[in-house]
Amino acid sequence: MEIENGMNQQIILKQRPSGTPNTDTFEWTKTPISAVQEGQLLVKTLYLSVDPYMRGRMSDRKSYVPSYELGKPIEGGVVGEVLESQSPDFHKGDFVLGGYGWQTYATVSAKTVRRIDPTLAPLSTALGILGMTGLTAYFGLLDIGRPQAGETVVISGAAGAVGMVVGQIAKIKGAHVVGIAGSTKKIDYLINELGFDSAISYKGDIPLHKALATACPHGVDVYFDNVGGEISDAVLRRLNKGARVPLCGQISSYNLEKPDIGVRPQTFLLINSALMQGFIVSDFAKRFPEGIKELAQWVNSKQLKSQETIIDGFDQTVNAFLGLFTGDNLGKQLVKVADPSHG
Amino acid sequence: MEIENGMNQQIILKQRPSGTPNTDTFEWTKTPISAVQEGQLLVKTLYLSVDPYMRGRMSDRKSYVPSYELGKPIEGGVVGEVLESQSPDFHKGDFVLGGYGWQTYATVSAKTVRRIDPTLAPLSTALGILGMTGLTAYFGLLDIGRPQAGETVVISGAAGAVGMVVGQIAKIKGAHVVGIAGSTKKIDYLINELGFDSAISYKGDIPLHKALATACPHGVDVYFDNVGGEISDAVLRRLNKGARVPLCGQISSYNLEKPDIGVRPQTFLLINSALMQGFIVSDFAKRFPEGIKELAQWVNSKQLKSQETIIDGFDQTVNAFLGLFTGDNLGKQLVKVADPSHG
Repeated sequence: MEIENGMNQQIILKQRPSGTPNTDTFEWTKTPISAVQEGQLLVKTLYLSVDPYMRGRMSDRKSYVPSYELGKPIEGGVVGEVLESQSPDFHKGDFVLGGYGWQTYATVSAKTVRRIDPTLAPLSTALGILGMTGLTAYFGLLDIGRPQAGETVVISGAAGAVGMVVGQIAKIKGAHVVGIAGSTKKIDYLINELGFDSAISYKGDIPLHKALATACPHGVDVYFDNVGGEISDAVLRRLNKGARVPLCGQISSYNLEKPDIGVRPQTFLLINSALMQGFIVSDFAKRFPEGIKELAQWVNSKQLKSQETIIDGFDQTVNAFLGLFTGDNLGKQLVKVADPSHG
Repeated sequence: MEIENGMNQQIILKQRPSGTPNTDTFEWTKTPISAVQEGQLLVKTLYLSVDPYMRGRMSDRKSYVPSYELGKPIEGGVVGEVLESQSPDFHKGDFVLGGYGWQTYATVSAKTVRRIDPTLAPLSTALGILGMTGLTAYFGLLDIGRPQAGETVVISGAAGAVGMVVGQIAKIKGAHVVGIAGSTKKIDYLINELGFDSAISYKGDIPLHKALATACPHGVDVYFDNVGGEISDAVLRRLNKGARVPLCGQISSYNLEKPDIGVRPQTFLLINSALMQGFIVSDFAKRFPEGIKELAQWVNSKQLKSQETIIDGFDQTVNAFLGLFTGDNLGKQLVKVADPSHG
């Protein structure tokens, strides 16, 4: 893709969604590309990331991170190529990781991006297994979940980007790993491709609580929760003494307009001296280099597989985002916006 | 009280309560006092403890500790006097802490009791501020809650035995301390006698969420929860980033026959990277000597006050226990069964 008449395509937040976002939430615009000033770069978007946490930022209530501004492009992770540099730290042709979000180009301060080594792994992994996805799984599981060999680790949203990495790391640590996901295709993938010991469909014929009893005969020591809601209700009642519950997401509640009503988990935590802890990957920002190093080792030794679902075309961005809430995606969801300009 | 015709009065679990226990739950019996064998002691009960956790043990579902057996005396903490010893480790007239529960005498293995020093503090404190009550407050607050100077600590069930100690320790650590309790009498006591910065009645004219907003202008960093239910719902929505929630009890749900339905707290934990952890004092058993030492120092330096509500007479035991669930008691609830035989 070349620069189309010098214009940058953007997807901006038009109105804050009430409930599930839809196409009225967003507006496509074209805007001239800003000139590159001292210290800035012009970056062409190659891949952009769509993630469940973005739903929270579309509301104006308190969430992990600040709300998106109305009328501005949706922010999020991007892999891009430097087309022009007015910074001594970058050159034309460099690949970078940025956070400027859903737009085809961006003129940004060189301080807001970091260089990616394209020889280490495919460029897209910087948005996935060697990026926030992998680091979220790594620190949430190992620092909060602390699985021991022989313990049982249950993962909800197991076929999501983070869940798949969590399960594989738990296997590396010697745990008995059980995933919960929403389709036969995902179940098969978790067991046959990623080596989960067991995987359960929450939409299956067998009630979830019965399927869990079979899959977790020794109870649950770690519950890595991406989902919340009734799936969690079923898992939490099986916690063992001293269990740990990293809360990574509550995708079932993001689109709720009222408080999330259901089974309060406090009793299960109390009777088991169990721990539940929310986190966001930035809590561990100082230790990212440690995490990236170990994740890359596991990727290179083939102990850790990366799964991406890549949709082609900037115009598919909103569809890819909305698909996160309907259970269709397998692994990290990315949009490919353009090919690199050079080899 | 002398041994009445050699008979031991006991209160036994007659039937497991469904919902709130009542007088049908219990049966009074008299049984001959067993002869003292090698390694055993005959102990006369001076004080016995009634505690909310006992409700959990009356059910046969999984709880912190094993269920009580039907037809056996209700187990719990007791301060007694040794009337006869067949153990070299104890002598007639020694005072001991035991766990043999609701009976006027007991013949027990010397290994199941520990000696109390009557010169350190009044005998009854071994069941309270220098016993499980004080240790529960100490480890739950300091190990899980970890209050820092200037942080806001909110305590539910603040006028209960544990809550009063928690608030005082939080003040010693320099926190802004807010208690939630159920009557004007308790509110006054917390502020005027124990030095809480603020105390709120959950039965007051001002809705709890508004009263909390006023009392906690900088949000909540530590929520020490004895209560659960709607009181917790109101506190948890005010958690700060990185907040800690030690779960000590969920008295509002102990008498529920079905799962506790309400606002799931996961979203509040997630958006604040907050921690919620259940515990029972025995999780910290190896560190009891450390806790008792520091608590005794605070008691002796008058930084920590002990509040006990003592009802006189073994026949008041069930009434004292049932009163725990109606919000009447102030501090640790004990029953005085007998005076010591000597000085």
